This record gives sequence, C-alpha cells and structure tokens, in this order.
Amino acid sequence: MSEGIEQVAGEGTQEGGGRRSREGRGAAARRASRTGGGPGPSLPYITRKIREYEVLDEDGLQLIEANADLILEEIGIEFREDPEALQLWRDAGADVRGERVHFPKGLCRELLKTAPSQFTWHARNPERSVQIGGKATVFVPVYGPPFVRDLEGVRRYATIEDFRNFVKLAYMAPSMHSSGGTVCEPVDIPVNKRHLDMVYSHLKYSDKPFMGSVTAPERAEDSIAMAKIVFGDEFVENNTVMMNLINANSPMVFDETMVGALKVYARHNQACVVSPFILSGAMSPVTVAGTLTQILAEVLAGASFTQLIRKGAPVLFGTFAASISMQSGAPTFGSPEPSLVSYGAAQLARRLGLPFRTGGSLCGSKVPDAQAAHESANTLNMTLLAGTNFVLHAAGWLEGGLVSSYEKFMIDQDQLGMMQKFAEGIDLSENAQALDAIREVGPGSHYLGCAHTQANFQTAFYRSPLADNNSFEQWEIEGQKRIEERANALCRSWLESYEAPHLDPAIDDALLAFIKERKDSMPDAFT
Amino acid sequence: MSEGIEQVAGEGTQEGGGRRSREGRGAAARRASRTGGGPGPSLPYITRKIREYEVLDEDGLQLIEANADLILEEIGIEFREDPEALQLWRDAGADVRGERVHFPKGLCRELLKTAPSQFTWHARNPERSVQIGGKATVFVPVYGPPFVRDLEGVRRYATIEDFRNFVKLAYMAPSMHSSGGTVCEPVDIPVNKRHLDMVYSHLKYSDKPFMGSVTAPERAEDSIAMAKIVFGDEFVENNTVMMNLINANSPMVFDETMVGALKVYARHNQACVVSPFILSGAMSPVTVAGTLTQILAEVLAGASFTQLIRKGAPVLFGTFAASISMQSGAPTFGSPEPSLVSYGAAQLARRLGLPFRTGGSLCGSKVPDAQAAHESANTLNMTLLAGTNFVLHAAGWLEGGLVSSYEKFMIDQDQLGMMQKFAEGIDLSENAQALDAIREVGPGSHYLGCAHTQANFQTAFYRSPLADNNSFEQWEIEGQKRIEERANALCRSWLESYEAPHLDPAIDDALLAFIKERKDSMPDAFT
Repeated sequence: MSEGIEQVAGEGTQEGGGRRSREGRGAAARRASRTGGGPGPSLPYITRKIREYEVLDEDGLQLIEANADLILEEIGIEFREDPEALQLWRDAGADVRGERVHFPKGLCRELLKTAPSQFTWHARNPERSVQIGGKATVFVPVYGPPFVRDLEGVRRYATIEDFRNFVKLAYMAPSMHSSGGTVCEPVDIPVNKRHLDMVYSHLKYSDKPFMGSVTAPERAEDSIAMAKIVFGDEFVENNTVMMNLINANSPMVFDETMVGALKVYARHNQACVVSPFILSGAMSPVTVAGTLTQILAEVLAGASFTQLIRKGAPVLFGTFAASISMQSGAPTFGSPEPSLVSYGAAQLARRLGLPFRTGGSLCGSKVPDAQAAHESANTLNMTLLAGTNFVLHAAGWLEGGLVSSYEKFMIDQDQLGMMQKFAEGIDLSENAQALDAIREVGPGSHYLGCAHTQANFQTAFYRSPLADNNSFEQWEIEGQKRIEERANALCRSWLESYEAPHLDPAIDDALLAFIKERKDSMPDAFT
Repeated sequence: MSEGIEQVAGEGTQEGGGRRSREGRGAAARRASRTGGGPGPSLPYITRKIREYEVLDEDGLQLIEANADLILEEIGIEFREDPEALQLWRDAGADVRGERVHFPKGLCRELLKTAPSQFTWHARNPERSVQIGGKATVFVPVYGPPFVRDLEGVRRYATIEDFRNFVKLAYMAPSMHSSGGTVCEPVDIPVNKRHLDMVYSHLKYSDKPFMGSVTAPERAEDSIAMAKIVFGDEFVENNTVMMNLINANSPMVFDETMVGALKVYARHNQACVVSPFILSGAMSPVTVAGTLTQILAEVLAGASFTQLIRKGAPVLFGTFAASISMQSGAPTFGSPEPSLVSYGAAQLARRLGLPFRTGGSLCGSKVPDAQAAHESANTLNMTLLAGTNFVLHAAGWLEGGLVSSYEKFMIDQDQLGMMQKFAEGIDLSENAQALDAIREVGPGSHYLGCAHTQANFQTAFYRSPLADNNSFEQWEIEGQKRIEERANALCRSWLESYEAPHLDPAIDDALLAFIKERKDSMPDAFT
C-alpha cells in the first residue's frame, strides 16, 4: 500500500461556524474574521504542560559549573569604563584589578539568591500581562534589524512606519505575547531621538507588554519616564513593566553602554535580560562545552551585578547562540551546535533559579524560503522544548537579524501558534480517551461523522491560516502560490483591519508632550 | 546594542583542506569533492547519545495501555479474507467471530516476547549494514509517490529513470542510511512487473540496505528470491536483509494484501514494519489520547501476528500520524497533534521492547517552500527526539506523499546531516571543555585564530552544502538564489558524478535472468 495520500472525503462542517463563534477583539477583528483575513483573539502566554528536554546529566552540569567558577575566579570578567561598577564589586568582596573583576568562589551565586525565579511583566492592559519564569513561555518579536524586506519585496532601510506596522502585527498575532522592543530600527529618525518614537509606538499601537531602550543610560531613563506616564510612578518603581536586553560583549566583557542601561533599569526594578552574544568560534570556544562554560561565567557576573544595584531586581539568564562559518566568518543558525548550547544553558539557568531567554525563529537566509524555515524551525522547536521563558526574535527575523521581514513575520507567527498548541501536551480526560467513539465506529469504518468528532473537532487541531493543504489541482487553480505569497496577502489584510486599542487621550497627550520636550532639548543632527 | 549580525572577519582556513582530507567513496566522489559538488563519504547509522523526549508520564502510559487492552478484548481487530490468519489466532487462544479477532488480555504482549528488540538490517556491502532498535536511528528515503517534481520543475508521473535517480541520490547522501523501497512509483512499468525493476535498481545502483515489495504476496516472494541471489539462500533465511512496510487499514483492520505480504516476510525472517496509517479525525479519533489507544491496539494485534508465523521474526512498532483538515478533508503535516501522537507512540513502543518507526520529513506543500520546510522540520525534529529507530520518508517527500521531489530530497538530506550531528550530544572531553582556550584568549579578544579553534574547527560545526550564509551583497552578486535553486544545481552535480558500487557480474546476470523469467511468465497488459 502506498503512503501517498489522496484527499479524504470530508463530512466535517465548514470553517466559518467555528470562526464566528470565537470572541473577536473588536469590530475590526470581527469584520476581518468574517472575510477570513482576521487573526482571531490574542491567546494568553504559554503555560507549558510538557517537560523540558535535557542534554546534560548531573555530572556534565557540575563540570560546566565548576569550570565557570574557575573562569570567574582565575580569569575574571571586565566591567569597562564604569568606576561605580568596579567599586560595587570591591565592596561586595570581589578582587578588582584594573577593570578586571575576579570573583571569589560562590560570590555570584550568593548574590543571585535575591533575584526572583519568576515575576510578572505588566502590560498597560492587565489582561495582556505575562509571567516570566517557571513553566511560562512568552513570545516576543524580532529585535534590532536596521533593514526591512517590505511587502513589495524590496530590501531597504527601516522607517518608523515599518516600526508601527510590526507593532500592529505583533498586537494582532494571537500567539505573540509581547509588543517587543526594537522590532526594526527606524533609521529615518535621528539615533538620539528614535527611542522616544519607539516606546511611544508600543504604548500607542499595542497594549501588550514592551521592552525599553538600552542604547544609552539616558534613553533608559526616558523609557522609564514614559512608562511612568502610563503606569504611574509608584507602580513602575515596584513592578516590572519593561524587559531590557543587556548583551555581554563576549568574551568576558560588559561595556559601559550595557552596564549603564543595566544600572538604570535594575535601580527602577525593571528586568534585565543578561545575554552573552555568542558566535561560537569567534566570541567563545569552537566547542559546545567551552561555549557553555563561558556563557555561564558571563551570566553569573552580569546577572549578579543587578543585585548589587537593587536586591530583588528581576534578571534573566540570556543566551544568544550561533556558530560561525569557518570559511566565510558568517554566522550560521538552526544548526546542531547552537541548539545543544541553548538546551544546556536552559538547564544551567534552571539550576540557578533564573528565568531563561534563548532562541526564537533565527535564520541566515536572505528570503523566507526553505532555508529560512528549516533554520527557524530547528531553532524554535529547541526553544520551546528547552523550556525557554522569554523568546526574543520569535517572529520576523531574516538574514542573521539584519532584516525584519513582513512575510516571515506572518509565517513565523503561525508557527508560534503551533508551538503554543503543542505545549498543551496530551489531554487524558475521559472525553479525550475517546473509547466511546472507538466503540461507535468500530473496525473498517471512519470517524468523520461520529458524535465525538463533531463535538471535538473545533478545538482538536491547530488550524494554520497559511498552510495550503488543498489538492494539487485546487492549488493550481488558485495560482500555484507559495506560502510567502499567501503570507503577503494575509499581512496586508491584517494591516488593513487593524484598530488601535484604547489609550486614555490625557495619557496620550502627556506622552506626546514628554517626547516634544525631550526632542526639543536635543541637537538635531546628533548621530 | 543591536543583535543584527554583520559578517565576522574570518581568520579561519579555507574549506578545501578539510574536504580533501576526508576519505572519498571512490574516484568519482573524490573528483566531485574537488569541484565542490560531491556529497562526501557515507556516514554510519546514527547511534544516539542524546536522551528521548517524553510526553506521557507513567500514569498516562498505563491508561493508554489499559484502554488498548480493552479495545483488543471488547471490540477486536479484523483480519480480512485470510482463513489461515483466523485459524492461527484461534489456535493461539483468541476469540474469533467471523473475521473479527478478540484478544484475551495479555495475549499479544505474551506473543511479542519472542520478537527481537534490536537486530541488524544487512546490506550487500557489510559496511552499510545498520542496526534497527535500541539507540540506533536509520534514515530511509521517501516511499510511495506516484509523481515526481523533476529538475525542470515539472510535476509528472514518475518513471523507472526517476526511481534509479532517487536510488543514486540516496546512495550518495552521507546521512541517508538506506536505499529505501518505493522511492517513487515507476508507472512506466506495468504494476505486476515493476517490483522486479525496483528491487533490481536497489541492488544494482546502491549497496545500502533496501526494502521489499508488499503489494502482493507473490511480489514479496520475488523480492526474497532476488535477495537470495545476492545474499545466498541460507543467509536470507537466518538474517534480515529487507524491511517491509505493512500498513494497517485503520481503524482496526488488516486486509488480505498486507497480511499476505506480512506472512511471506515473517516466514523468511524478514522484518515487518506494522504501521497504523492514521489521519486523526478520519481513521482514528480526533483526539491524541484516543488515537494513541487505537494505534497501540492495532500494533499489538498486527505485530504479535508475525510471531504466530515465525517466532523471533523481527517486527517494528510503526506509526504514521497526520491530522486532517476538518474543512477540506485534506491531510495536514508538521502540526502539533501528530507530533504528540508520535512522541507518545515511541514511548509505548519502548515499553513493548519493539523498535519504532515514525515521522520523516513530511509536508503537505506542493513546492519546497517555507511551508514544506516548517512542516518537515517540525516532523523531523520530533522524529529524532522521540528516539525513532526507522525513519521512512526522511528525504524527498512532497505534497502529502504524492510527489517525490528532487530538490526537496537534497534539502532534506542536508537536514538529516544536522540531525546526525545533533544526536552526538555534547562532548565533555578535556579538549571540548576548552579551558586553555578561554585562558589564552581572555576578555575582549576573539577565538578565531587561537590554537584550540585551529585544532577543532574541522569537526566542530556541521557544514551545510546548501545554506547560504554569505553577506547580502555576495548573495546578490551570485544571483539571489533561493535554496531550491542551489539544491537543483547540487542534485545535477551529484547525478553527474555518480558511480555505481561494485556488483559481481555473475550476480548481476543472475538477477537479470530471474527478472526476465518472471516477466515472461506474466501477462503483458496486467494492471
């Protein structure tokens, strides 16, 4: 018998019924839903009912930990051009020589005991607040690209209009749990001012939780000031409303920009994602075990530093892992070695009691083709199974992070929906056991029309809005479209049907006034 | 700091050195390798050093097992149009009513105690023999498609020339461990004769282990006769040289064709892969737990039947799991529910002590685009982590198994290489710990030129022959190629450089004589 599959003659009901019965976000969502173009309602963050996959046993973990302790003590980590940081380390009992900090065994772990293992990342709409840590997984859009690949297929510098579009798409994507941070770099706005427009866009066009600016301490201060306009001063000082990406300058360096931003955020109780930025073979040893050792040492130093600033400030164990091509020096994604690094790092983070960040939908491809998809899927499957809590770059990342792609964003967010469904694990309820259905149908018949199928099919399977599973003939009639063409059309449909969430006009005015005041105080041509 | 990644200025050496130092398969491989088009040497089957991922706990597994026992006893399984099978079940103590067999609790498990938990699948070249079961994973090409998508991009009926090409590609692909079975249906040859040409192609153009014909008992006999010409009568009777796909007609039916082939193969000690062929919602309940229950019941009945034919005959726990779209009735792949089914089935198989088959690079897409890749990658990652032993459809599958695609074969086999590397797990040797490298480089420098990197980079990272990780500018200069264009070129290069493995001319003559005799005995126009 061949395993080639012809269409099954369907007795199932039509899609419309299911769609219409869902609660839409608003008039636009309902309208779009009726025409098939709407995204459906936002889903809460993922609470994983599945276990974590592990690649290291107890002996391996202890070996890596012992080696990291050795690095911290013997080699040390540099905190550059920041006398305050060095003094704080001296006061904490570290051995500081020049800018190099040597850590007595156990110091960093001891300091990290005051860091929370889980906390709430608050959104301005409380229904969109998410948990960071534990069994929670939160998907966050692509971060950082200076370029976009737009809906006309053109690769060009990103603008604030693109930025707003990606915020809107993240707001609408059901399994995107955050508005993100630098979803692309709006290079049409001067570098010293653009953080204001970025933070404003997150607050204006979305009500999902967002990330703050980290490119200079004063931009971190601006981010906090704007958050306070929306959330109130006291709320911000005592809760976490921003996640902030603090990359180590691997190997074994934290620079003044990153340490500066870290200090501002930790001081105000905002969360730092301390992430060694690793291209193995360049920023770390070419081997997985060596890379894991260095990552752990860097995170221990950087994360524990937040507790010197403010005990109890939330901090994440971050890992950005890629390899480099030893031929061209280019970074490579979705390959086996970074996956092993990330799985191992997740285990090390759990042992430290810190929430963990890694992965996403990473790829090196220039277009959303099968290379992009394989690399993204390899990374994303690992990300979920590793038990990652905070998933930056979950959708839209192309070309090694140089490009935010509209089409890839749509394809990726569909995959996020699949991951969210997978994370529910296996329902073992009496209904799911389906013994009555098996009795009813019996040998040689089929389940298409049976009562159990009718009662359960609406929620049984994840439904992709982009995958084409029609017959070849139907696909041919519909123009032989590749998935990126369907993604393009769906993206246009979403952007057309977008409606902003409510924002109190008085708060909006206050934000705009703050931005004007800050921009007026800055030189125009600053870069 | 942005996470967009510019090229790292490489100090690494060029690829050529590494390639040249590898042992090639022969003159053609070496020649192709020098020009960059060769596949490199074949790798042995995978021995996983990583653990299996599990989705069910002990309670869940026992629940499914108890429910499957209940189905076997209360509902029963049909063995159609095969009085011998029914008599064998009667003799074994089953309660047979009409064609419906009801199994006393524990009967199937008791029978399966004589089935081996692992065995060798012999190739005519002993170096290519593989282990089935335990920590072994064996990748096997696509099986069954009547169509191909050829190198001109045309979708058309498959021919024997296509069949030979896929055998050649599987022979050359380093991480393809088998020549496969019906890599496509050579529809230019009458259906009653084509199994002869298929088996001959596997024996002539490859020396990797192959699969037998299952479409009729006499074709199974022919497959065994041809194997005996190559391996010798006694060897075939006492060893396993063919894996054979025995699909259940789910729900809960084995038909006379499949039972007929099963009996022939089991009698001759050849392995049967007993696989419920499941599109959940049609051939099984719409829920994961219900599907798992039915799969286990069907496998228990079908697999234990092999032991009634010959105690000790090798048999696999197979699972082919997809969902159906309840809108169109079309099968869907790479989605969360079939992954949960396969992970669960793998656990059930291990508890039974049977080698396990599932997964592959399955997809519903019509072209090797991002849909195809996402669906394939989701399936393949699951397949490996589930601990699958025999991976049919590991490369080349397109359009729900209706099409064998040359380009997708090339893309998939690259991913198989990645899986094989991942399965090595994390090296924790002193060299891999890299402490001396971390000491040598120190904070703020890089590892590109250090001694440890130089000594290890040849084997550190999996190298994709298809992924483009060059700069955007370089990619643009090279014609902005998508991965399927690169796959197309690589495929042509491989086929051009192919050289057949040695086959004793006397054996070749004997095979051709057997085929002629058999074909002469058949009516021409039989279909």
